[in-house]
Amino acid sequence: MSSTWKCEEARVPPALQLLTPPITKFKIGLCQMSVTPDKERNIVHARNAIMKAAEMGAKLVLLPEMWNSPYSHESFPVYAEEIDAGSEASPSTAMLSEVARTLNITIVGGSIPERSGDKLYNTCCVFDTDGKLKARHRKIHLFDIDIPGEITFQESKTLTAGETPTIVDTEVGRIGIGICHDIRFQELAILYAARGAHLICYPGAFNMTTGQLLWELCQRARAADNQLYVATCSPARDVASVYVAWGHSTLVGPFGEILATTEHDEAVIVSEIDYSQVELIRTNLPLQNQRRGDLYQLVDVQRLNC
Amino acid sequence: MSSTWKCEEARVPPALQLLTPPITKFKIGLCQMSVTPDKERNIVHARNAIMKAAEMGAKLVLLPEMWNSPYSHESFPVYAEEIDAGSEASPSTAMLSEVARTLNITIVGGSIPERSGDKLYNTCCVFDTDGKLKARHRKIHLFDIDIPGEITFQESKTLTAGETPTIVDTEVGRIGIGICHDIRFQELAILYAARGAHLICYPGAFNMTTGQLLWELCQRARAADNQLYVATCSPARDVASVYVAWGHSTLVGPFGEILATTEHDEAVIVSEIDYSQVELIRTNLPLQNQRRGDLYQLVDVQRLNC
Repeated sequence: MSSTWKCEEARVPPALQLLTPPITKFKIGLCQMSVTPDKERNIVHARNAIMKAAEMGAKLVLLPEMWNSPYSHESFPVYAEEIDAGSEASPSTAMLSEVARTLNITIVGGSIPERSGDKLYNTCCVFDTDGKLKARHRKIHLFDIDIPGEITFQESKTLTAGETPTIVDTEVGRIGIGICHDIRFQELAILYAARGAHLICYPGAFNMTTGQLLWELCQRARAADNQLYVATCSPARDVASVYVAWGHSTLVGPFGEILATTEHDEAVIVSEIDYSQVELIRTNLPLQNQRRGDLYQLVDVQRLNC
Repeated sequence: MSSTWKCEEARVPPALQLLTPPITKFKIGLCQMSVTPDKERNIVHARNAIMKAAEMGAKLVLLPEMWNSPYSHESFPVYAEEIDAGSEASPSTAMLSEVARTLNITIVGGSIPERSGDKLYNTCCVFDTDGKLKARHRKIHLFDIDIPGEITFQESKTLTAGETPTIVDTEVGRIGIGICHDIRFQELAILYAARGAHLICYPGAFNMTTGQLLWELCQRARAADNQLYVATCSPARDVASVYVAWGHSTLVGPFGEILATTEHDEAVIVSEIDYSQVELIRTNLPLQNQRRGDLYQLVDVQRLNC
């Protein structure tokens, strides 16, 4: 009956098989850290939070969006770093590389403003346990919002959008990366799931308007709809800053269940990921065999063309 | 910048413009009714619930999934009706037609087991204010689940899946229809949104295992991700029945916000839909201009081929 439904055609190209990850069960750390205008302090502070997570047993550590810089148009060019120009030009990523290697952990390094030529990106760097830069995700969907009286922000005024989805094989599984507003786009998560992701990490700084309604909802929906793990990490809330982050960094399991979450203050939390749960839920509730490729297809344009 | 992203290509064919509905603001009624083995009683009971909703001001009334029949393989063939064979062969839909005309309301008639030739379907009939059958949705995604020790059910043992998505223009807007497990498939809701739906109605009987984790989550996610209204209607919970329904019939607004909901007992609730909110949210947070058709495309296969 599945053949009539052409379930495999619901993803174009067809979804990849889920590979057995190098490690099935491990701890992830979410570092919901405060961000200040003092960049050097932010770097030291992030390093301390990562060390704390590792001490608590984390093999994978996730940082917030824009953790080295205030979230404002004025700050982005000032705090931006040229990631490929060496450690002096990019002290933030140099720290991430060093601490990943020193602690022998994988780091999904939140995001920082990245300068490349005359452009600025909102960029997440992923470091492997040997300290090598394994992947770089430039935020694909810039955050442009205008709710009169509540919030107006146009990221596209200063930032340029990335040109590619980012999925990376690490020692803790195949990880898809999205940054903040990327999580609003269900298509990206579908695409990562079809590329065989075990986990999607979303550093994000939702605000006080969209945070309450959408932050937890989006995380749980991406996890449950795609039957994989989702981890998010926000800056701690600072009501004195221009852009007030929602907080509530969270780990969600493949049934959409919240496994660990913070409030809005600074916090380092560690929780267990068990990828056998992904296999289990896909066996119990085989959505992948029930999709209707005869009625709808999600095309991964770059994977189709490569 | 949007042109680089080819946002309009994120839907294939491109998304239709949202039409101005005949009525912008109106009340919807959700009839979370108990379902018994007595079919005649169920029909009278549904009629009474619809009348109550109309008395409370509802212009659109939604019934639960399988409202005329117990939810079991043994019952489906016994309670099934031939919808096209006249009112004697289909007393359930005859009642819906009569009461829609009498009360001058639109009815999304939950679902009943439908017999067509040698096949059985899980079918939702939509009646216009003149009592005419405007549309018929046969559940596209059959519910096959196997969680050992909790729930095992294979709808595909007795039922045949429908062959087409269903969207219908009514006096209360353009409505997409899904039945229960159809809500788990985000692609169907994307497709309805691209066909210009203002509202998606999902009659559904989630169970006690998936209900708590997924029922509200799916409703809110479909509404928020697609920036439209979602209405659901479940049978009331009967802990004595073989299949225990979750209840919690709900209306969700285009920001993913719950506007009205029931508990699990019998209830008729009425709440206001205001389609200007759909326009507003799409202006404030224009996801439709931010999608990346250069990276992903959701193909509506039947609309593409027609």
